[in-house]
Amino acid sequence: MAPEPAASDFAALEANLEEKRQLVEAALRRLHEAGRSPQVAAAVHDSLFAPAKRLRPILSLMVAEVLRAQPEPVLPAACAIEMVHTASLILDDLPAMDDAALRRGRPACHVTHGQANAILAAFALLNRAFEILAVGWPGAPEAGTRATIARQLAGAVGTDGMIAGQATDLAMTDAPMDFATLEFIHSRKTGALFIASAELGALAAGAAERERAAVVTYAKNLGLAFQIVDDLIDVTGAVRDAGKDVGKDLKKTTFVSFCGVAGALQLAEELIAASRDALAGLGPRAQALHDLARFVVTRKR
Amino acid sequence: MAPEPAASDFAALEANLEEKRQLVEAALRRLHEAGRSPQVAAAVHDSLFAPAKRLRPILSLMVAEVLRAQPEPVLPAACAIEMVHTASLILDDLPAMDDAALRRGRPACHVTHGQANAILAAFALLNRAFEILAVGWPGAPEAGTRATIARQLAGAVGTDGMIAGQATDLAMTDAPMDFATLEFIHSRKTGALFIASAELGALAAGAAERERAAVVTYAKNLGLAFQIVDDLIDVTGAVRDAGKDVGKDLKKTTFVSFCGVAGALQLAEELIAASRDALAGLGPRAQALHDLARFVVTRKR
Repeated sequence: MAPEPAASDFAALEANLEEKRQLVEAALRRLHEAGRSPQVAAAVHDSLFAPAKRLRPILSLMVAEVLRAQPEPVLPAACAIEMVHTASLILDDLPAMDDAALRRGRPACHVTHGQANAILAAFALLNRAFEILAVGWPGAPEAGTRATIARQLAGAVGTDGMIAGQATDLAMTDAPMDFATLEFIHSRKTGALFIASAELGALAAGAAERERAAVVTYAKNLGLAFQIVDDLIDVTGAVRDAGKDVGKDLKKTTFVSFCGVAGALQLAEELIAASRDALAGLGPRAQALHDLARFVVTRKR
Repeated sequence: MAPEPAASDFAALEANLEEKRQLVEAALRRLHEAGRSPQVAAAVHDSLFAPAKRLRPILSLMVAEVLRAQPEPVLPAACAIEMVHTASLILDDLPAMDDAALRRGRPACHVTHGQANAILAAFALLNRAFEILAVGWPGAPEAGTRATIARQLAGAVGTDGMIAGQATDLAMTDAPMDFATLEFIHSRKTGALFIASAELGALAAGAAERERAAVVTYAKNLGLAFQIVDDLIDVTGAVRDAGKDVGKDLKKTTFVSFCGVAGALQLAEELIAASRDALAGLGPRAQALHDLARFVVTRKR
């Protein structure tokens, strides 16, 4: 296990996160195309450029760096993952899904732009993500590697991934849930794209299988911990901090409603410990990932 | 101009269409993956395997054949286009879009499976289409060619394509429309995937630019003519023939409401003539495409 970071290490992490966040923002703006419908363009733009942590693409860049690779060659692919994540948020908030009025501190996409444009915007973002991978970019990996990235992304999104998580979540609303189902839902709703992000970083670095497996296990546990902290913020935080409807998730079973606040916190800390354990074989070069894991579980509380 | 087909040529065409339709059905069943959510799996299955003409993948196969290529290597890609088309039908029928209760002679997806599962099914179908192209299949073209197919598909779907057409269609509901806007909408809602289908066939055949341009112009005009005939069937046909809510489109401007029945029919015939003119350089080997064009404009009336 790496040494615990001092307060100054979090300052370094925060600077690192902010630097990468700005890289991602700039790349997203280059990659975004308005197209011929002003209605859909506005819905996509508002959703994609609302203030956001950009944690998934940052994770890709950070894994690439930790594995000694330049992150730039995969930056557009990392942005494609963020586009898919944004699409999933638009869908989650729809009246037919979680029916949430606020997202990222602003009115949800369908509230501002109407349901039809929101649905088309989500569709457009998923489509654009795969278009970016198909077209390539200056310095992009060859078509075969981009196909591998597209395959991993599609697997994370598809009916064994995010879509299965969301559908199961909705099917279980108001129904008693066991822990395995709760974990199934969130490992897919949140974990799948975290894993795809880490895989992308490992691919960019030409990582050995042992390294790839390490960052995938890291990302899987990190994603679940991140979701639990989100649930905790929903219960204990203010709307301004969480940026979405606080308490909205309470009609559904969450880790907090299942384990209680103290139990959920303990679970998050166990998951963070597991995520850091997975990095053991990478040695001190993985420090930034250790810091990120500790940061995720201490944020906003 | 090729000679007019006799009645026996339509019989040959119908046998050709049915043979290719069965190839497509079988391939779709091989390519369909249920996944981990029974709700989404049922919604996808009902939508994808409702009785359907499969005209877009058939067009890909037919163009490949006319250009002297075996169609099998692109059959899964042709099925990916059909999956995207099916996704677009699910979305079109949603209450927030055209609010249609019937599709392909059966209750629309959201009526049977609920809006959330319908939206997730559409998302899953788009995602699966790109997954098929990313993963490849036995005998598939190399990754670079599959990336070209994915790029063309994404272009047809995206904010310059189908999505722009649908958003503009919705934005113009109850608004006065000029002919250019009507043409813009349908060249994107229907034309874009017809063009992508023809491009796929041309790519499979390693077609020269002149041949590619010919089948693209053919498909563009064929798609628009097909849409006009659809509008005509909506006005003049029975629900059982059209398989969807007859008259439902009448709250929106259609080619029929714009030009009248006789005018729309004349326009469809002019488009079919233009689509056949585009084939002139291909000579007699394009007979099947000539027959298909004539068939599209004479069907069900």
